[in-house]
Amino acid sequence: MTEDITVFTGSAHPEFAKEMCDILGVELSHTNITRFSNDCLQVQLRANCRRKDVYIVQPLVPPVQENLVELLLMLDAARGASAAHITAVIPHYSYARSDKKDAPRISIGGKLVADMLSAAGATRVITMTLHSEQVHGFFNVPVDHLTAVRELADHYRNKDLSNTVVVSPDFGYAKVASEFARFLGLDVAAGSKRRMADDKVIIDRIVGDVEGKNVIIIDDEIATAGSMIELIDRLQDYNVRDISIASTHGLFTGKAVERLNARDDITEIVTTSTVPLTPERTPAKLETRSVAPLFAEAVRRHNSGSSISSLFSDEVTHGE
Amino acid sequence: MTEDITVFTGSAHPEFAKEMCDILGVELSHTNITRFSNDCLQVQLRANCRRKDVYIVQPLVPPVQENLVELLLMLDAARGASAAHITAVIPHYSYARSDKKDAPRISIGGKLVADMLSAAGATRVITMTLHSEQVHGFFNVPVDHLTAVRELADHYRNKDLSNTVVVSPDFGYAKVASEFARFLGLDVAAGSKRRMADDKVIIDRIVGDVEGKNVIIIDDEIATAGSMIELIDRLQDYNVRDISIASTHGLFTGKAVERLNARDDITEIVTTSTVPLTPERTPAKLETRSVAPLFAEAVRRHNSGSSISSLFSDEVTHGE
Amino acid sequence: MTEDITVFTGSAHPEFAKEMCDILGVELSHTNITRFSNDCLQVQLRANCRRKDVYIVQPLVPPVQENLVELLLMLDAARGASAAHITAVIPHYSYARSDKKDAPRISIGGKLVADMLSAAGATRVITMTLHSEQVHGFFNVPVDHLTAVRELADHYRNKDLSNTVVVSPDFGYAKVASEFARFLGLDVAAGSKRRMADDKVIIDRIVGDVEGKNVIIIDDEIATAGSMIELIDRLQDYNVRDISIASTHGLFTGKAVERLNARDDITEIVTTSTVPLTPERTPAKLETRSVAPLFAEAVRRHNSGSSISSLFSDEVTHGE
Amino acid sequence: MTEDITVFTGSAHPEFAKEMCDILGVELSHTNITRFSNDCLQVQLRANCRRKDVYIVQPLVPPVQENLVELLLMLDAARGASAAHITAVIPHYSYARSDKKDAPRISIGGKLVADMLSAAGATRVITMTLHSEQVHGFFNVPVDHLTAVRELADHYRNKDLSNTVVVSPDFGYAKVASEFARFLGLDVAAGSKRRMADDKVIIDRIVGDVEGKNVIIIDDEIATAGSMIELIDRLQDYNVRDISIASTHGLFTGKAVERLNARDDITEIVTTSTVPLTPERTPAKLETRSVAPLFAEAVRRHNSGSSISSLFSDEVTHGE
Amino acid sequence: MTEDITVFTGSAHPEFAKEMCDILGVELSHTNITRFSNDCLQVQLRANCRRKDVYIVQPLVPPVQENLVELLLMLDAARGASAAHITAVIPHYSYARSDKKDAPRISIGGKLVADMLSAAGATRVITMTLHSEQVHGFFNVPVDHLTAVRELADHYRNKDLSNTVVVSPDFGYAKVASEFARFLGLDVAAGSKRRMADDKVIIDRIVGDVEGKNVIIIDDEIATAGSMIELIDRLQDYNVRDISIASTHGLFTGKAVERLNARDDITEIVTTSTVPLTPERTPAKLETRSVAPLFAEAVRRHNSGSSISSLFSDEVTHGE
Amino acid sequence: MTEDITVFTGSAHPEFAKEMCDILGVELSHTNITRFSNDCLQVQLRANCRRKDVYIVQPLVPPVQENLVELLLMLDAARGASAAHITAVIPHYSYARSDKKDAPRISIGGKLVADMLSAAGATRVITMTLHSEQVHGFFNVPVDHLTAVRELADHYRNKDLSNTVVVSPDFGYAKVASEFARFLGLDVAAGSKRRMADDKVIIDRIVGDVEGKNVIIIDDEIATAGSMIELIDRLQDYNVRDISIASTHGLFTGKAVERLNARDDITEIVTTSTVPLTPERTPAKLETRSVAPLFAEAVRRHNSGSSISSLFSDEVTHGE
Repeated sequence: MTEDITVFTGSAHPEFAKEMCDILGVELSHTNITRFSNDCLQVQLRANCRRKDVYIVQPLVPPVQENLVELLLMLDAARGASAAHITAVIPHYSYARSDKKDAPRISIGGKLVADMLSAAGATRVITMTLHSEQVHGFFNVPVDHLTAVRELADHYRNKDLSNTVVVSPDFGYAKVASEFARFLGLDVAAGSKRRMADDKVIIDRIVGDVEGKNVIIIDDEIATAGSMIELIDRLQDYNVRDISIASTHGLFTGKAVERLNARDDITEIVTTSTVPLTPERTPAKLETRSVAPLFAEAVRRHNSGSSISSLFSDEVTHGE
Repeated sequence: MTEDITVFTGSAHPEFAKEMCDILGVELSHTNITRFSNDCLQVQLRANCRRKDVYIVQPLVPPVQENLVELLLMLDAARGASAAHITAVIPHYSYARSDKKDAPRISIGGKLVADMLSAAGATRVITMTLHSEQVHGFFNVPVDHLTAVRELADHYRNKDLSNTVVVSPDFGYAKVASEFARFLGLDVAAGSKRRMADDKVIIDRIVGDVEGKNVIIIDDEIATAGSMIELIDRLQDYNVRDISIASTHGLFTGKAVERLNARDDITEIVTTSTVPLTPERTPAKLETRSVAPLFAEAVRRHNSGSSISSLFSDEVTHGE
Repeated sequence: MTEDITVFTGSAHPEFAKEMCDILGVELSHTNITRFSNDCLQVQLRANCRRKDVYIVQPLVPPVQENLVELLLMLDAARGASAAHITAVIPHYSYARSDKKDAPRISIGGKLVADMLSAAGATRVITMTLHSEQVHGFFNVPVDHLTAVRELADHYRNKDLSNTVVVSPDFGYAKVASEFARFLGLDVAAGSKRRMADDKVIIDRIVGDVEGKNVIIIDDEIATAGSMIELIDRLQDYNVRDISIASTHGLFTGKAVERLNARDDITEIVTTSTVPLTPERTPAKLETRSVAPLFAEAVRRHNSGSSISSLFSDEVTHGE
Repeated sequence: MTEDITVFTGSAHPEFAKEMCDILGVELSHTNITRFSNDCLQVQLRANCRRKDVYIVQPLVPPVQENLVELLLMLDAARGASAAHITAVIPHYSYARSDKKDAPRISIGGKLVADMLSAAGATRVITMTLHSEQVHGFFNVPVDHLTAVRELADHYRNKDLSNTVVVSPDFGYAKVASEFARFLGLDVAAGSKRRMADDKVIIDRIVGDVEGKNVIIIDDEIATAGSMIELIDRLQDYNVRDISIASTHGLFTGKAVERLNARDDITEIVTTSTVPLTPERTPAKLETRSVAPLFAEAVRRHNSGSSISSLFSDEVTHGE
Repeated sequence: MTEDITVFTGSAHPEFAKEMCDILGVELSHTNITRFSNDCLQVQLRANCRRKDVYIVQPLVPPVQENLVELLLMLDAARGASAAHITAVIPHYSYARSDKKDAPRISIGGKLVADMLSAAGATRVITMTLHSEQVHGFFNVPVDHLTAVRELADHYRNKDLSNTVVVSPDFGYAKVASEFARFLGLDVAAGSKRRMADDKVIIDRIVGDVEGKNVIIIDDEIATAGSMIELIDRLQDYNVRDISIASTHGLFTGKAVERLNARDDITEIVTTSTVPLTPERTPAKLETRSVAPLFAEAVRRHNSGSSISSLFSDEVTHGE
Repeated sequence: MTEDITVFTGSAHPEFAKEMCDILGVELSHTNITRFSNDCLQVQLRANCRRKDVYIVQPLVPPVQENLVELLLMLDAARGASAAHITAVIPHYSYARSDKKDAPRISIGGKLVADMLSAAGATRVITMTLHSEQVHGFFNVPVDHLTAVRELADHYRNKDLSNTVVVSPDFGYAKVASEFARFLGLDVAAGSKRRMADDKVIIDRIVGDVEGKNVIIIDDEIATAGSMIELIDRLQDYNVRDISIASTHGLFTGKAVERLNARDDITEIVTTSTVPLTPERTPAKLETRSVAPLFAEAVRRHNSGSSISSLFSDEVTHGE
């Protein structure tokens, strides 16, 4: 009754695509990626797309521009090959951080890239933990916006959480932190952050009771970990004890690994599998939880016409 | 009566933009390019765009994907800043080589990138020597398609051209080679080429009389120079004498410099300034002719509402 | 050199349009609004639009749907009348509060209305203090997003501000509150708010030092004032003294006037003129500051091709 | 083989939607409509839309603007929820009366609203008796334009129609009146109408033989009934006897009920169910015929890929 | 302050374009039209279009399809040549007769052609006397819809009109006939027409007093004159005397000339110049009134930003 | 699981459509084509399109403009009739020859017509042997671009091909000629052609060894055969023997039949069935090979979601 699922992956994160396919019980279709001598890319989809329900997996991780253009070429190729539906599966949509015009004459990159994706042929997008919820509204196509909060909370479920508090790095993220804390029955505190530059922030103080407690810091993305270290320094003004970090997207760029490994007070770092890891970008105490099953379930439900939102809520979805 | 010209440059080829501005007598406006720690780009145009006739200069040279996304961000920024007109000035549109669907399920990259440019805000394009003339038709916005043939021919105008023949590397380029030869009053020969892969071609033989002659090889783009060396090898079967190479776009990627420097029979290589040069990508006998004056004249004429085509032809452009 | 400015107003807030016109030195053009017997609207623009720089003034204030459709009809009429440019001047864009998909299968209203505006003919938008900065990215046309922070701060500039602290109702608004506070050299505190329903919030406590101080509460919009009263109750746990409220948009819907008038601890309420006032929706201690001059200046600058951003920043806007 | 039918209704006419659903044998899906304190609307569709054949029922009846915006929000919500097809079911498309530019600088409202519907996500429209047939051409999406002529004629089929003539209020509607008359084997007369304002017309005289006859007046819409009363006055110059009024859309706005109840010569008023009735807007001698079965049949046929036009004509629809 | 007017003509009616240009005081720009051996057309605009206010003159007269495609090619050429504005000047928009879906599965041709024109590059349209007023709403671009009623009425202004009545061929056209009659202070009658096929109508009788009178028949278009002769036959049942025919568009296709020349009771036929005449398609008593001055005035006013509607109405167009 | 195939034909080449239908085992659906007295066309599709997989067959052969507009009307009619998919089947896309801007201010007709097709409702195109491969990139919808090379080669497969060489009329077509020759194991030569005008070319000489050989000339289209005769004259300078001509599209316009019949050295002319033949446009030695089976197979595969590219290549199309 519905079209066959056909999954392709770009070069950004093939392991993620493979895991999704294994769960879905479909074979990952082959892709040929060619770089011409003038540095232009060509991508060939090596499986029939005609009237198929096509999924292209590609998080926008470094090298971001290479991966973005590769994704655009794949979407266009699927369109030209008469796919019935083309879903861009973007576990980490990094351009979501460019979500406002906070300086004159800049592009709102998260909006521009969303426009490029639909112009190139994407008819839907599945993604996870956009930097701000409003970025959802940048897209002209339906977006299934998944959350890793439950998955990250599961990590702590059977641990000793007495004397533990959840810490949000800033006020803006406190809402998600509260949801995470509710799952675990914990209180929330928040840093009072002021951003000076892309990788330089100042945290004035901590709002909420953290004195002498174990803390779980929750954030959406760790890049250079600069602000994370700044937050931890501030937390230590309150003599916190064990520090666990939970973050959906673990990029660990720049000096992140060095910085995080240097801290004894960090007991563990928990991320999801939205960003591929390399040995040199993996901090010592990292634990990764796969969200490929969540993406696979979203694909399966969409393909069969089942509700995805019901995955996350108790809402009654039929006539009442 | 017309809007002020405002010129910005991306990071691909600022020298070209500066030279254009000097000729036009306008100041090159400043651009801030930021790379965030998650590898996303942000570009800020640092001059007022409001109701201006804006030009963004960016050839799609390596790193092509970086330069392309940077260009898209600049176009969108100019649009958001209420520019009256936004012209993408792309001296080398490298994706033009991806102009056909010669394998199943590939994107026609030259078309996709053209779509991206207009979706991002470009209302016009100025470019030079597209790989094939049909690529002009990939654009939904007006394109001023300049040619370097006259500029390249000027290089040879006062030289001794007795016993000289123009050589096109293949049949497809013979039409341009003929136009070039007509400017210099020379005959044309052509290679019979068969492409095996992106940087591997076989040239069976030379069509036309080249035996014992000086030759000027004309082509649109030199990348790895693999096919150029193949052509020269074939020409040497006919005992040609001095070999001069004229090419609009000089990329010199891969082993190009090494290959070209190794040949004693090449007396000079003439390219235009569409591609920026670095010391390590500059062959020994290279001579570059600037086409920035040609681009500047096209900008000036467009801005003032004068005909650009009349630059190139003797057509009477008013009522007859 | 530029087109004549022609300003029309819908029925939402003609006083605002008139004030803008007086400052600009142009006559407000007449509009005929007809309601047919079947309740459909017809709007006739009563001045020539042909090749004019047309501005249609209409905040989306109650009755919101009536005002929205009226605005759409005016935009389309100006387009059909061959206007050169059509700017929707929307001092209060109320649908900006619908900026995320926080329940399954809802429309992101702020995005939909933005799409309707451009589909109806708007080529630009001028607005003030969008509920969140990301809403800017919902628009496909250039947006000049003005801020009232400086105007509101000016109200307090010559007052005694010793022992005074600025209070943001929640974490999310703390960034704007900080900017406001910086203008006045004050500290900032913030409420820890949890929204239960559209007009029902719970504020757990106040973050920052407010004990015994005078406070200036700053917010973007006052509707029923339910959360404002909740915040004031919480502030009174800390024995604050004089309470001044500053808010860009003053709607005063539902029981707002009754609630605010009942409080003796409120010494004044300061809003801007983005929302029209009626006697019954005007609280006792209201002081309104007109932002029509700011909008008029934005119109004048846009029409003459001058930078609007330079109004707000010290950035050098020419080549550096 | 086809997608499941899922039907939602806005607040304009839920009874119509329910009746359609009963006939179709599907459950009417639930919708939550919220009005925020700033008067903005939010509509939540409470049933899974994913890959469903979705129908949103909403006639554009008073309050028209509220119902229109509600409909737009529902269409967009269904699109964002990955519906396969989204049909706006608009039994009364009142903006069809705004179908020409009969004054300078007005919007052709029927066209603008059609554009808004498709921009908001409608992929098809089902409607009935558009004010003029040309309005069909205002839509960019397929329209199934149903007619109530047969349904209205059925009302008279078993009655005594000797000495009866069908009267069209004006020349423009004479074609439909003729079709209606043909069903009943009657002659047609027409008023010579001149419209002075929205609810003020002058009818000079009656064209055709009505002297001493029973008349059935047929029209597309009754709003204030002003022109209907004018027509009846004119008919009484010819000493007509029983007067029956048949009209697809019965709005009965303004003084319609008062005016119609005051006439003894009107024996009955027949309308369809496209417009919901309230006690105060129901004239005394009203009889309503439901067209929900006709809409349900159109939905059923579309969903199963059967011809809808064959409902109305004897045309052979396969190869001949 | 405004762009230069540049006028091109297709091959449909160059005389009209020349007359417009003479009045405007601009030179008609040259156009080269080529028909390739495979029957495809190519049109070259032979004057600079860059940033000009371009007008392409082409009524859709027979051969309609040839003229339509020629017009589309010219619009696209002007767009590709960077014209500032492109107005299609279509004195006779014949596809306006295809304005409704009166049979299943037909295209509404008037809407489709309007879409083609804007897709090919038209940014505005000037036309005259569309078959129905609603066709205006088929266009996505501004339309200046001129009327010939005043021009046709001027023909009769100084003639003896005693005992004269204006006759509309059917009810649908009575509104325009009334406007025409008002200019001349005459009464109106109308035929009761039923169309059997494209060139076959039956007129049952005449509504209004025509007995023994001179009549002026007014219509929008004369094609085969079949229905006109039918109307005259019916009029002769009432012993009318002199018959004058006034029609905006005079096509005189098929047997029109033969039919009209055969009637002694026709004293004159008055048309405008929207359709080019050939000797064999010119009836004996034809008088043509040029409307090129009206089109030229519309062009002049648009180019200078003056109101066109004020040409036709007494409306005050500034703020009141 | 997929929609029913429904095939319509315009008036250009009904035999082709019928043959396709016979092979597919579906009935060719009826179409009514009406030419109104004002020369406008109306096309009625006489079979149910609702949710069907609709194919409209129409090569763009003379009269090209008539056939093009007819096709546009049919596409729009199918869209308005709620077809699920609409494929334009265009065996000969003649406007592909207009593929570049080789003169100022011309339209690239191949691009414009592609835009018109998708604007009119085509969601896919199937065509054969576009004049240049780049024309594929002119389309915004998926194109299945079939080739006749194998079909033409099959004609020669069992013939005596000793002493035979394949001749391409110019350099540009040599690539296809080579592919054709590879199928037959033959060598290739090429004419050195210079085009003087649309139907006038000069061929300087033949490149490659043809002396005394039998030749098979292969080309994409024969129109007036002017350049073909020129080529044969040149070949006779080399004393070639039997001449066979193979061409995908056989138009035989102008003097083609006369010219070809006058040559004794032509032994046969082989074309495909993309262009309909009439007795007067059929040269004496013509043999036509039907490609309707190839088109039917493409339709069948698309409808069932099978790969079409795998028809032509040995590529493995599943995951590898």
